[in-house]
Amino acid sequence: MKRVGIVGASGYVGGELLRLLLSHPNAEVTVATSRKYAGEYVFRVHANLRKATNMVFAPLSMKRLTEECDVVFLATPHGQSAKIAAQLVEAGVKVIDLSADFRFRDPSLYEVWYKWKHPKPELLQEAVYGLPELHREEIKRAKIVACPGCMPTAAILALAPLARSGLMDPEHVVVDVKIGSSGAGVAPSMATLHAERFGVVRPYSPAGHRHTGEIEQELSALAGRPVKVAMSAHAVNVVRGILATCHVFTDKEVKLVDLWRAYRGMYGNEPFVRIVKDRRGIYRLPDPKVVIGTNFCDVGFEVDPHAKRIVALGAIDNLMKGAAGQAVQCFNILVGVDEKTGLDFYGFHPV
Amino acid sequence: MKRVGIVGASGYVGGELLRLLLSHPNAEVTVATSRKYAGEYVFRVHANLRKATNMVFAPLSMKRLTEECDVVFLATPHGQSAKIAAQLVEAGVKVIDLSADFRFRDPSLYEVWYKWKHPKPELLQEAVYGLPELHREEIKRAKIVACPGCMPTAAILALAPLARSGLMDPEHVVVDVKIGSSGAGVAPSMATLHAERFGVVRPYSPAGHRHTGEIEQELSALAGRPVKVAMSAHAVNVVRGILATCHVFTDKEVKLVDLWRAYRGMYGNEPFVRIVKDRRGIYRLPDPKVVIGTNFCDVGFEVDPHAKRIVALGAIDNLMKGAAGQAVQCFNILVGVDEKTGLDFYGFHPV
Amino acid sequence: MKRVGIVGASGYVGGELLRLLLSHPNAEVTVATSRKYAGEYVFRVHANLRKATNMVFAPLSMKRLTEECDVVFLATPHGQSAKIAAQLVEAGVKVIDLSADFRFRDPSLYEVWYKWKHPKPELLQEAVYGLPELHREEIKRAKIVACPGCMPTAAILALAPLARSGLMDPEHVVVDVKIGSSGAGVAPSMATLHAERFGVVRPYSPAGHRHTGEIEQELSALAGRPVKVAMSAHAVNVVRGILATCHVFTDKEVKLVDLWRAYRGMYGNEPFVRIVKDRRGIYRLPDPKVVIGTNFCDVGFEVDPHAKRIVALGAIDNLMKGAAGQAVQCFNILVGVDEKTGLDFYGFHPV
Amino acid sequence: MKRVGIVGASGYVGGELLRLLLSHPNAEVTVATSRKYAGEYVFRVHANLRKATNMVFAPLSMKRLTEECDVVFLATPHGQSAKIAAQLVEAGVKVIDLSADFRFRDPSLYEVWYKWKHPKPELLQEAVYGLPELHREEIKRAKIVACPGCMPTAAILALAPLARSGLMDPEHVVVDVKIGSSGAGVAPSMATLHAERFGVVRPYSPAGHRHTGEIEQELSALAGRPVKVAMSAHAVNVVRGILATCHVFTDKEVKLVDLWRAYRGMYGNEPFVRIVKDRRGIYRLPDPKVVIGTNFCDVGFEVDPHAKRIVALGAIDNLMKGAAGQAVQCFNILVGVDEKTGLDFYGFHPV
Repeated sequence: MKRVGIVGASGYVGGELLRLLLSHPNAEVTVATSRKYAGEYVFRVHANLRKATNMVFAPLSMKRLTEECDVVFLATPHGQSAKIAAQLVEAGVKVIDLSADFRFRDPSLYEVWYKWKHPKPELLQEAVYGLPELHREEIKRAKIVACPGCMPTAAILALAPLARSGLMDPEHVVVDVKIGSSGAGVAPSMATLHAERFGVVRPYSPAGHRHTGEIEQELSALAGRPVKVAMSAHAVNVVRGILATCHVFTDKEVKLVDLWRAYRGMYGNEPFVRIVKDRRGIYRLPDPKVVIGTNFCDVGFEVDPHAKRIVALGAIDNLMKGAAGQAVQCFNILVGVDEKTGLDFYGFHPV
Repeated sequence: MKRVGIVGASGYVGGELLRLLLSHPNAEVTVATSRKYAGEYVFRVHANLRKATNMVFAPLSMKRLTEECDVVFLATPHGQSAKIAAQLVEAGVKVIDLSADFRFRDPSLYEVWYKWKHPKPELLQEAVYGLPELHREEIKRAKIVACPGCMPTAAILALAPLARSGLMDPEHVVVDVKIGSSGAGVAPSMATLHAERFGVVRPYSPAGHRHTGEIEQELSALAGRPVKVAMSAHAVNVVRGILATCHVFTDKEVKLVDLWRAYRGMYGNEPFVRIVKDRRGIYRLPDPKVVIGTNFCDVGFEVDPHAKRIVALGAIDNLMKGAAGQAVQCFNILVGVDEKTGLDFYGFHPV
Repeated sequence: MKRVGIVGASGYVGGELLRLLLSHPNAEVTVATSRKYAGEYVFRVHANLRKATNMVFAPLSMKRLTEECDVVFLATPHGQSAKIAAQLVEAGVKVIDLSADFRFRDPSLYEVWYKWKHPKPELLQEAVYGLPELHREEIKRAKIVACPGCMPTAAILALAPLARSGLMDPEHVVVDVKIGSSGAGVAPSMATLHAERFGVVRPYSPAGHRHTGEIEQELSALAGRPVKVAMSAHAVNVVRGILATCHVFTDKEVKLVDLWRAYRGMYGNEPFVRIVKDRRGIYRLPDPKVVIGTNFCDVGFEVDPHAKRIVALGAIDNLMKGAAGQAVQCFNILVGVDEKTGLDFYGFHPV
Repeated sequence: MKRVGIVGASGYVGGELLRLLLSHPNAEVTVATSRKYAGEYVFRVHANLRKATNMVFAPLSMKRLTEECDVVFLATPHGQSAKIAAQLVEAGVKVIDLSADFRFRDPSLYEVWYKWKHPKPELLQEAVYGLPELHREEIKRAKIVACPGCMPTAAILALAPLARSGLMDPEHVVVDVKIGSSGAGVAPSMATLHAERFGVVRPYSPAGHRHTGEIEQELSALAGRPVKVAMSAHAVNVVRGILATCHVFTDKEVKLVDLWRAYRGMYGNEPFVRIVKDRRGIYRLPDPKVVIGTNFCDVGFEVDPHAKRIVALGAIDNLMKGAAGQAVQCFNILVGVDEKTGLDFYGFHPV
């Protein structure tokens, strides 16, 4: 049993961490902080947890986090995690960070993608990119697990077999992302007002998205040479879910059997990756609707000989495999229990 | 461990029964039938169950059901359950029926509300109305548990404390129901086509709804005198969820504290009923959004002294507490395990 | 050609007024004010109007309104309209007010329903309740037209024939309203955040809604005796549209033909009321989906002999017949042109 | 005044043609056919047209079409239009076809993309691709106007300035399409059932979509060399609207000013193309939500120097500029009236 703390527990990711960890057999939630809601019952914010807990949000206290926690989850904004994590690592507390602050290995990339100078670059060596399918062994020994967010998780898992097998042209990789509104967080704004956000198919970041850098970092490592990613993000009319449609050009003559080999070879034993590529049925390819509430990443693919293209698809629940679920999966690896503990929920049909 | 069968497993209720029972520690699903999909993998229809099971739908076989099952769930249309149930009871198999075929105690009510003559009226004495909050003890000994559907469950649980406490005028009870599209089942039609069904607030059954009769049966029993229910049903733009807004007139001067006493008295120890009546917060009253995926019925109330009215609210997931979840709750009671077994899921925030 | 001004033109009602009046053959929009967006192009806020106008929002100026306008539309919050209207009437400018400030004939009702003392009670005598179906003749001569909002419009038009014909029991009148998110206006909040508002069936005002008073005022006048209204409001998962389901008890034996006579008698010649009561079809009763974008109020009805009830239904687009469309209809009456001018849009199928 | 007929008037495109043409000052709808609904009132199917018309659907009659129509709109499935059109052209009736049957100039392309041998290849010379922005002059003299559907319209208008200006690498052109459910037509199926279709982000045609061929035909003609298009189609949770996100690689150093020049040069005077590329605002790029109900195609663009990519965006209402609106625009050109006649509707904010 590990004592765990959650910093930023009143946001959507924090709420999912609470839901998962409150019923996790190897975790005891000792602290859940919220600046805005300190002193308020958790169930007033996360109404689903009514009757699940009478816990109250606490203000942020480094003292409590270091004294009462073995592992701390940071669901904090970019820039804040770095400061908190440094103190926790110092005190010997393991950190599972859901911000971007420890995802790059090369500190100079923060200046490129975030216009931000990392305050503790030496700590990056203690951090592991928290994608178990690529870094399971390193996660076991990490002091900081830097969990990727929803877009990198969907895109990297969709593309990793192609990068590793050398099937893709690394100069022509398009990642076209469609995401639900929970990805934008809990702060109300005109962009997220129901009347304005409902029914959109809105290209909100056609180029230059910050998450491009970490996708390139991971795919380049797999490919053994630099990969350039051309990413665009769209808001669509759902609350949860993300689909990454990856269009990859290739000069080779690729057959479906090559793709099956590449994807099976990489994901055949993965507990949370499902290869979805059926001949018939309305869910014959990945669709986030199917994974809502689960920690699955459904991946699929298609060959387009006409345009010399491979289409790779990745679908996740942005708050689960794209955030809280992945963090709990990393926690399980870190503390040495079955990776699926607390994550055995199969989604709904229909939802 | 009980061997269970599910008849009608390819529908939405059947899919939820499969999801719940496949991971239920006291159940082993031995047969799941589907006329339309016999021979097909379950996960081709219920895409969420990919990797959860490699089970295949079976054709309906009374032989298999009687030989391989201790308990059979009937997710079959009205009229079909009666025939199957009769044979199963004969063979000593317990039946949990999700159709309307055994819900009335008085066989003549089938002719009133369904224009249908019950083929086995004597069996109605073996049946119990499967609403645990009202009939827990009888369910333990029943041969047939006749689970109520979504509208009666939401309406009866919202109104029961008022009926029992004598606070309501039994001649002026309005039940205004709003329901999602999964309640209409899996058969495609113009009425359920996405382009036609999306965005509606559609009054599809303003008067004369069949479920009126069973709501009256249960409320009258609680009130000790005949209760008339004026029910209307509306389709709204969600997939899951139902809200019953009950408008009850009263000649008494009712105060909030009277209502608190009535609802707490009835539901204070119920595992799946939550009283939701807060002073603030956007989820201060029952909203089906909060219970999606759970077996909870959230109930709430308000007093309207101006119009001499009480408003009682009941929110459930129509496929869970309104169908499959309630059936599993009844199964737990029937087989003598903790009523919450397999039903410990707290919903999502947000979804 | 009348010179018109719009105060509060950056809100949703203001945007619809702009859209309708910019292409109205008898109106020239001379001023459109917005506190928040003064100096900004109209099309930055109302993106649909890109290429329709290069107009810029102006700050509020009584001088401009009085000098440059013959008629001013007030899409301002409750409390503000009263002050502005007084000055405009003084200057001989006609006012079409979309707030609640001039809807009651009896000033004491403001204290009951709004906890507010009217600052210019004498002006109420210059005002007419702007529902053309009830007050067409008075609107022609009014100095202030006090247009009802969406809930009163839907409820009153649904119930008026019953009130006038004496078919309803005035003590047992339930109005159960379902409304889209645009009714909550443009101010972002947790309650209207897409992730929180999407998928709700949320009872946000079960009793005591402010609009109850004006519905009672109008129905009582028609009935010739006091009518009590028991109203509840729910938020549903659409942007536009409102359905009022009215449950009316009656001691008389009412037949469908009586209802046809009452509704046809009242609305047979109305340009913007359609009686929707077909025997078949998925749109056989009023559904706001059908009237989106139009100025129609679709009304329908059903008899429930079992519960001695009449169900009356009214469906409108809350921003059109429930606000801007109705205001333009009143404008047409006021200035003496064909009532349908500028309002000839038939909605979409599907939308 | 032209007498017009609509074949296939009970579908969604037919319904929009009816709505537009019934109020068109230069058209008189003399025949509207429907196989399924012959004899039924139009407003039973297209409920929005209640009170707009008492027209009844007619069975298909070549005699009536040739005798009573000057222009016939064919909203018929692929394969049927070719036969009907041949007879109409023979009789001197102008044809505006909304199927794919006359879109290719090269008959062999039908065998490539549709596995279908064109029955009247000689008629292709009488046909013009009905995209006014590219073929306005030819439309004036055509016997058959072959209107493109929603995907080609959005993609071609987004990419045309890049093709014409030589800014794009013709071997690496990705078109990632997101479309609403009305694009799938009126035939109910499991794929379009509300409970299954709601909330999806579903990649239903990742490669090999039939419309690829016509996009290539038009872009190649503009570019003066063969262009290959890599297209993927996704279903999203709206009823109307389509967004084409086009990812184009380029070896040149492209600046925003080059794109402004290319787009302004091509669309500066177009009545139905708006360039949407603002610095701020939530609608700063094309979003189909803004064009619902209108005949606009909103186009926008962005440069991605990091990946040597241009992102081009096209947003339309699939039933308007993607079908019925475009057909009426072509009709206006064909009969020599102002191109905007009957198409002056500006969309809603919000919807």
